[in-house]
Amino acid sequence: MNEHTNLSLAQMDQMSLFHPVTSISDLQKNGPSIYTAAEGVTITRDTGATLLDMGAGLWCVNVGYGRKELVQAGAEAMQQLSFQHFFGGASAEPTIRLADRLLGLFRDTVPGSDMARVFFGNSGSDANDTAVKLVNYYNNLRGKPAKKKIIAREGAYHGLTLASGSLTGIKSYHTAFDMPLDNVLHTSCPHYFAFGKDGESEAAYTDRLITELEDMIAYEGADTIGAFIAEPVMGTGGVFLPPEGYFEKLQDVLDRHDILLIADEVITGFGRTGNWFGSGTYGLRPDIVSLAKGLTSAYFPMSASIISTRMWEVFENASDEMGVVMHGFTYSGHPVGAAIALANLDIMERENLAGRSATLGPVLLEALRTRVGDSPFVGDIRGIGLMAAVEFTGFPQGAAPHKIVARHATVAGVLTRALPYLPVTSFSPPLSVTEAEIIEAADRYARALKAATPELEALMK
Amino acid sequence: MNEHTNLSLAQMDQMSLFHPVTSISDLQKNGPSIYTAAEGVTITRDTGATLLDMGAGLWCVNVGYGRKELVQAGAEAMQQLSFQHFFGGASAEPTIRLADRLLGLFRDTVPGSDMARVFFGNSGSDANDTAVKLVNYYNNLRGKPAKKKIIAREGAYHGLTLASGSLTGIKSYHTAFDMPLDNVLHTSCPHYFAFGKDGESEAAYTDRLITELEDMIAYEGADTIGAFIAEPVMGTGGVFLPPEGYFEKLQDVLDRHDILLIADEVITGFGRTGNWFGSGTYGLRPDIVSLAKGLTSAYFPMSASIISTRMWEVFENASDEMGVVMHGFTYSGHPVGAAIALANLDIMERENLAGRSATLGPVLLEALRTRVGDSPFVGDIRGIGLMAAVEFTGFPQGAAPHKIVARHATVAGVLTRALPYLPVTSFSPPLSVTEAEIIEAADRYARALKAATPELEALMK
Repeated sequence: MNEHTNLSLAQMDQMSLFHPVTSISDLQKNGPSIYTAAEGVTITRDTGATLLDMGAGLWCVNVGYGRKELVQAGAEAMQQLSFQHFFGGASAEPTIRLADRLLGLFRDTVPGSDMARVFFGNSGSDANDTAVKLVNYYNNLRGKPAKKKIIAREGAYHGLTLASGSLTGIKSYHTAFDMPLDNVLHTSCPHYFAFGKDGESEAAYTDRLITELEDMIAYEGADTIGAFIAEPVMGTGGVFLPPEGYFEKLQDVLDRHDILLIADEVITGFGRTGNWFGSGTYGLRPDIVSLAKGLTSAYFPMSASIISTRMWEVFENASDEMGVVMHGFTYSGHPVGAAIALANLDIMERENLAGRSATLGPVLLEALRTRVGDSPFVGDIRGIGLMAAVEFTGFPQGAAPHKIVARHATVAGVLTRALPYLPVTSFSPPLSVTEAEIIEAADRYARALKAATPELEALMK
Repeated sequence: MNEHTNLSLAQMDQMSLFHPVTSISDLQKNGPSIYTAAEGVTITRDTGATLLDMGAGLWCVNVGYGRKELVQAGAEAMQQLSFQHFFGGASAEPTIRLADRLLGLFRDTVPGSDMARVFFGNSGSDANDTAVKLVNYYNNLRGKPAKKKIIAREGAYHGLTLASGSLTGIKSYHTAFDMPLDNVLHTSCPHYFAFGKDGESEAAYTDRLITELEDMIAYEGADTIGAFIAEPVMGTGGVFLPPEGYFEKLQDVLDRHDILLIADEVITGFGRTGNWFGSGTYGLRPDIVSLAKGLTSAYFPMSASIISTRMWEVFENASDEMGVVMHGFTYSGHPVGAAIALANLDIMERENLAGRSATLGPVLLEALRTRVGDSPFVGDIRGIGLMAAVEFTGFPQGAAPHKIVARHATVAGVLTRALPYLPVTSFSPPLSVTEAEIIEAADRYARALKAATPELEALMK
């Protein structure tokens, strides 16, 4: 009960909060799940129950919860300079150092990349929204005003502003919101397990995807296509690893048609795939890299867009004529967020969390495979770094076995993510997770699957 | 110099940062202006110079810089629960209490309002982007799929995502970005001083604007217009106070045509106009209220969208059919931001900052009028609460006298905002500003105007 209204917190939630990505009637029926504290990989509910957070929030708390170092860096920066904007050349030290450090990190870990500047925002959504605007800006300045369409992929998740949500390729996010916008095209989802044909090799599947893309470009006209956007590993769609040879062939096509590549590394950035960036893992040479989540481990809302030299040179050369680049946000470059991001990078480097992700990824996969790999409900277990998926199979179209299992998993004391596109459970723990925590989480998940079995069997009928 | 690269901070900035709303070539020529610390209303540069920040950042640091109470609330919340998402009914106490408190504050201070829920985001831009999506959602659920256009006003500023930036009515923000989107219309800027005709009374001017709006609605068809968006006082455009009777007549028109009203209170919220909300100051009865900036005094990126009962009921009634409302952001409802916002509201209440804004507004206006009101360059001095403007007059089209004065003002030790639409300098100090600081700032501004005089005279020729 609170002193104002005699309502419990749960009632107050139901009567005041418009939750993101939530069913209103479910909330009215069941009430919220209130979390009160978190430390490391463990999160505590108001009931006193503790859970292993195998989602790291929403793929974002890369260094784990409750890190004193980040809290202290944030508090010191906030006391020193509570806010500073970066309009009109205004600036502040933490943000300058962060931009410099991100450029260096990307340069050092993504061979063949050629990046020039870093723009800051607040979220992955606004980073991809910025990408859409910069593609327009770039091709207008180059005298190619028709070259603006962006090709995204079915199953992609790129955020939920009107523009970034239009890039998202999961229909349920569009329904009743009048999305996607007209200038977005979606090509097929590159997920061999679900969409490869019987008898088709992975390499042949890749070739089919590339041919489809070439056909799309030919049909639309290459002079109308501004950019292609891709997550190195598709996260929210279902942890889809690129099929054999995919990005190499894809980039050949894009190069041939003068099409920019936007790498959405909101999930894959900062160690998730076992390298600092997914672009390094899969050999991408992007023109725009969208970063958020792991940048601050979600302690502070911040995004970054790394811009390639070829785009920057066009912006720079046009500067005298164009004047001020009229894009930006009040909180672009917030010095408190930058200070937290720097402390976050310090931890990532000191504890070698990208390396740890590479080492522990196979442990997580093995733990899942030995425990639930033989389940008749499970079709595929896959992953890279600390980004793994259990895909269910054999259920009727539209069934949601993974949501049933996720509910039992919560009861068993492990938080996983039941994804909205295919029946997939994802695992993306903090990169600071221990081997023992991984094993314990897999044990709990296996118990949840067992507990869910009667419901899953009923669903199969 | 830093240990990594032998570059000065300024050089590192020039070689790594893509500043928001900045001229690339100006930055290359002049370098950044680096700020190092701030306390109360005073901000310090790396040169050691101190300035009175009469902009409160970008109209946002309402309680002033360096408030220990906010730093401590943020640090405690971050240590306790560094991040929590609000998807799928997940929740956390600070955010629940903040939603409840915002609803109560709005209800108590905006007579005639009827609001039901609060949605959280990260910035004013994403709040207005959310508004666009919710207008679509609302009218799709009501079976009015054609009723989606949004009418905004020339001179308006509503953010810079592709959708919110399309609502913005200042052309320079659109150039080369392919904005506005098709479904946005702009009606005339309601600024009597600049756009009233010779001999036209303010009331007649209002009637002309309302007639124009009615004609626009008739031409487009009311069944195609979903919403009208308005800042209670237009901030970035030039601190335009609504002309006599404007909102009363406007709302009659909207009511008659079943058109939603979105109140963009990103600037006017939290005491800026002398009341808690500009909607209270001008008698608005909005369906969506976009809030950001003053919500956390910019110590943490956070926005809030308050949704009316009539919209919420449509969402709620459709919930069983629609399932999950597929909109939201990773950082929607961030518990650290909510804890900071609660501490910020505590300060605002304890120090009666809305009342202080009402009391000190006339002091600020008087200080400006007595010092620069007689200048031949100054056409109008106006404001409400701690939101004031000096509008320059008599210069050739496209001249920017206010930018010249702003440069001299910085030298004189006062930060003001030279706005991008009309030649207007705005003043929006922290609401915690003292009378002595207002007088000192006005003195410095008057000295700057004097120092700028030769340049202004040259500009006039």
